[in-house]
Order: sequence, then structure tokens, then C-alpha cells
Amino acid sequence: MTSERNRSTGRPTLDQVASLAGVGRGTVSRVVNGSEQVSSRARQAVEQAIAELGYVPNRAARALVTQRTDSIALVVPEPGERFFSEPFFGRMVQAIAGGLSGSDLQMLLMIAQSAEERQRLEGYLTRQHVDGALLLSLHGRDDALPARLEERGVATVRVSRPAHPGPACFVDADNRGGARKAVEYLVERGRQRIATIAGPLDMAVGMDRLDGYRDVLGGGPVAVGDFSEESGVSAMHWLLERHSDLDAVFAASDTMAAGAMRVIKESGRRVPDDIAVIGFDDSVIARSTDPQLTTVYQPLEAMGQEMVRLLLAKIGGESLDNYEVVLETHLVVRDSA
Amino acid sequence: MTSERNRSTGRPTLDQVASLAGVGRGTVSRVVNGSEQVSSRARQAVEQAIAELGYVPNRAARALVTQRTDSIALVVPEPGERFFSEPFFGRMVQAIAGGLSGSDLQMLLMIAQSAEERQRLEGYLTRQHVDGALLLSLHGRDDALPARLEERGVATVRVSRPAHPGPACFVDADNRGGARKAVEYLVERGRQRIATIAGPLDMAVGMDRLDGYRDVLGGGPVAVGDFSEESGVSAMHWLLERHSDLDAVFAASDTMAAGAMRVIKESGRRVPDDIAVIGFDDSVIARSTDPQLTTVYQPLEAMGQEMVRLLLAKIGGESLDNYEVVLETHLVVRDSA
Repeated sequence: MTSERNRSTGRPTLDQVASLAGVGRGTVSRVVNGSEQVSSRARQAVEQAIAELGYVPNRAARALVTQRTDSIALVVPEPGERFFSEPFFGRMVQAIAGGLSGSDLQMLLMIAQSAEERQRLEGYLTRQHVDGALLLSLHGRDDALPARLEERGVATVRVSRPAHPGPACFVDADNRGGARKAVEYLVERGRQRIATIAGPLDMAVGMDRLDGYRDVLGGGPVAVGDFSEESGVSAMHWLLERHSDLDAVFAASDTMAAGAMRVIKESGRRVPDDIAVIGFDDSVIARSTDPQLTTVYQPLEAMGQEMVRLLLAKIGGESLDNYEVVLETHLVVRDSA
Repeated sequence: MTSERNRSTGRPTLDQVASLAGVGRGTVSRVVNGSEQVSSRARQAVEQAIAELGYVPNRAARALVTQRTDSIALVVPEPGERFFSEPFFGRMVQAIAGGLSGSDLQMLLMIAQSAEERQRLEGYLTRQHVDGALLLSLHGRDDALPARLEERGVATVRVSRPAHPGPACFVDADNRGGARKAVEYLVERGRQRIATIAGPLDMAVGMDRLDGYRDVLGGGPVAVGDFSEESGVSAMHWLLERHSDLDAVFAASDTMAAGAMRVIKESGRRVPDDIAVIGFDDSVIARSTDPQLTTVYQPLEAMGQEMVRLLLAKIGGESLDNYEVVLETHLVVRDSA
């Protein structure tokens, strides 16, 4: 189920801004492009008109008058430890670098962890240092970041739909469908007491994988982790204490599944005989656990390439501010379920 | 043995360039800062004078006339897989991010693997997009990159001394001294047939750790790896085939030591009883092997902080073009030797 959708609508134009501000097109253009040669009075009128109309500068037009920056940002608003320990990030960075290999754009990787770092990053991105930004791993707190960047004329494409509904340009995997396939498989194999370890619920990816579980079972034991292996360990302890008769667990990431499997084995139970385990991602971890992990494949390489394709199109002036690409997921059966 | 040394010498001045080119100081300044307002004839004369004199623009003076870029580059000329799989990089990135946390500089991480990517990167860095660059993991082929960047007015600080002698601003660990301590320890414990798995010999860090081994033993069986775990596996196979009576191995990284240890155990030998193993880095890997790894600690966090300190000083106009900081290393004894 690969789907692609453009939900763009009519947008205010530069002419409308000029007309409302009572200035010429050239003045609006100079304000938008950060030129010094505008009176403060004209600047104020233009900025007010931009705010009232919700005008977003047309990047193709802007490229004619301003210098290109030669670069795009790849933004990871996560702690550095997570960036280096979770295979998801490495694969995405590689895929995006691959997608840029034919272009002359330099990829600038920016990791922002603390509130201070996120603020500095946002300031940097909006001072016309980059042509566009790819955003990975946005939590609820960062959900408005892409919109704020777009308002300042920075083309953005995010991985994963926004946690809160609203216009966005994003590439996603069919997380809900993939989770459904995993849980349906457990049901087909006769498992009757199936728990889930969900991902962070301030992220769409966390919510969607939990919704897939609920689509199949209605409800059931839910523990929440943060995608890290340690959180899978804690979640599995918590589940076994309260539901010692579980016979299956669907974890929303391979890292959490690996942690859960460790706890199950330490408790003297066997995988999959006593408790079947399914993960999500099909990362390298899935092939390094014992037994190897049954998991949901998501096409990270293709997603990275799609993100680059959409961003280059936006930088080139295409209207994709409300555009989504959702790529298919499927179950990879190995030995843990 | 922490040491710090400034080997700066007199450098040509802007006045000398102006005089040789037969133009005024302002013209030289405009050429250096990329201004359009210079005749092509004057530009040519200035560029020739700059080349003849080996003039390097003074960054403090430049900062007065040009806009600051708000950012520094952190350059990793390595394949992405290595960047994400070797703990060295994660720790350095974290340390450098920490060192920048008080400043308003955005860290831009740039990974360049292929020749094409390295060329694009060099072009990007020299087009005044960044105030300075920190360079990690330079192989022989990239040894001239810092000098080329400096010529174009980009402040640079590298980790590790250059593979080929020449002026450089760098922060390093005492690799040779650390390797010496490791091998001396093996000798003291009565080991008599000690091999080494060296790192890449197109990098100073690879050569220095091998030199430390040779300082103690004069010679001995040497296999060469590339710091990856797989290369440790191959090297250990190679060593055991040729020297089945080895009783110790010093590997130039923890990752290679972990690979070697796996091969030793698979061959039916015990660590450390039959073959003692020592690594280098004291990374997380050293505590996750069985038995835990005896290894040489290098203070990556302090090295990252020092790199930031030197780079900020250079950006501020200090003359540190030929300056080195070498930080102490020491042996951490665990169970593998």
C-alpha cells in the first residue's frame, strides 16, 4: 500500500502581500530576502501583511534573487547517545546521503538534544544558511518546528506524519498496517495472551504501532517504552510481574524486542515456545539476537530517498506543503515467533 | 604527559601582500573577503601575491568586515557505517557538542565517504559557510585538507597529528606511550610471544600505536586492520595460522580486540589463560566482552573539549597554526590480560 497524496490548496501570493502592505513587489521581495535596503516603515508593513495573509515565499522566485546555500540540513532532535545507538538513525543518514550523491548539495547533520540546543538550531536554520531541512524523529514538543521553518521560507520534509493533525510534507512507513500484520500473525499461530510494548506516545510512530495492535485485539496489556533496549527491559519486567501467563509480545522496535527477549530468557521462559516475540524495523539487531527476531520490515532506504526527492522538488519551487508518501511494510518471519 | 606546544613562526602580513601586488590594503581585504567590487586585474595581482607569499588571512580582521557564519563544521572523512558502528565517533561528537554548549555556534556534522563527497565537502567548506572546522579521522589521502582549508581562511583543528610531518594545529592522545604501557604490562606478566594487530598505517594513530609496540619488543608478529571488528577477526585468523603458539595480542582498538577475542575462543583457546588480549580506547565495548577487556584509556571527552577550545581561539584570531596538545593515556586492567 504505497500511497502519495497532494493536499495543496491556493496560497497567498507576493502580489497580495504587496497590495495589502501598500508597497511594490520589489519591496516585498527585498524584505523576504533579508535585504538591508528597505525602510523600517516599509519592512513593518510588509511583515504585518505576510503575517495576516500567512504568505510563504516562493522558493523558486527567491532562488532567482538570492544566493543558493549549497546545503540541506538533516535534523535529529534526539540525545546523541540515542542517535549513535539506534540503527534507525544510521540507516536513514546513509539513505539520505545516498539520495544526495548525484546533487551538489552538502548534507549538514545537526543533532539537538537540550532545549538550548534546539533553540540555537532553529535560529540557525531560519537565518538562510540552508536551502531546506529533513527532519527525523520529531516528538510532540517539536511538532510545530516544520511549520515555523516553512514560515521563514525553509523547505522541510519530515519522516513520519505529525503527532497532531495539520498540513505537512512527510514520508512515512505504514506503521499501523505493519503492527496489524504482526499481531494478526501471532493470533493465527494460536497465541492468546498477547501484550505490546509501545513506543513513545508523543510520536506518531509510537501511536500508530499501538493502534495497529488495538485494531486486531481491541485491548490488552500495554507497556510503554522509548525505543531503547533498556526501556524494553523495564517494560518486559513490568509486563511479566502483572501478566505472568503472557504467551506473546509485540514490541514496537527491534531494540525494545531485544531487551524484552533478554528478560524473558532470564525469567527461565523460552522464546518462542513459552513467549513469542515480534519486533519492528528489521534492523541488524533482528539478526543478532538468539533466536533471530521475527519483525516488521520498514523500507528505511526507500524512505530516505523519497525524503530527498520531495525536498529537492520543494527547493525547486514545487508546491508540496501538504503532501504525503506512505510506504508499505511487511512481516519478516524468523525464529522468535 | 600532557603537553602543549606553539611552534608558530612569523607569517606574511596583509601589508606585504598589498605591497607586492601594488595595490592598497583595502583591495587585498576585498579580494580575501570575496567582494565583487574589485577589478579582475587587481584581483589577479592580489591572488598571485597571496600565492607567492603564502599569506593566510587574519581571521580576527576578517571578522570585522564579514558576517560571522554562526557555525563550525565537524568533518568525518569515513564511510557512514564506520561512523555509526565505532564508539570513538559517538564519544567525540558528544564531547564536541558539549564543548560548544556555552557558545552560540551551531555544530554541522559532515560525513564524506567517496572521493566525490570529499570534493563537494571541500568546496562547501571553502565558500565561507563556516567559521572553522574540526577534522576527525584523517587518513593519509586527506592529510593536506587542513592546510588547504587554512589557505582559504577556514580555521581548522584536527584530532591526531598529521601522518606526514608539517605544521598543524591538533589535539592527540599519547598513542605511542599508551601502546608501550600495554605491551610492557604483557611482558611483566610473563607473556613471551606477543603479537599486535595494528590500525590503518596511513593514519598517525595507527603508526604511533605500532611504534609503541615496537619500542618495547623491537619486532614481532604484526597484522594490520582498519579498526573495525571484522578486521580484528581476519587479523587474528591470520596470526593464529602463522603463529599458533602466541600467548598475547595487543590490538590497536577495542573493536579489533573484541573480534580477535572471538576468534581465540572459537579456536578452543581461553582468554587470558592461553592468550591474553589488550585493546585500546576504553570504549563501552571493553565492558561488554567476556572476559572484560584490559585496554588503554584515551581521554576522548577531554580531547573533544580541547579541540573546541583551540578552534574558538583560532576563530578569535589567535595564532595557533602550529600548535599541539597531547593528552595522557593509561592502562585499565580488567580480565582479558
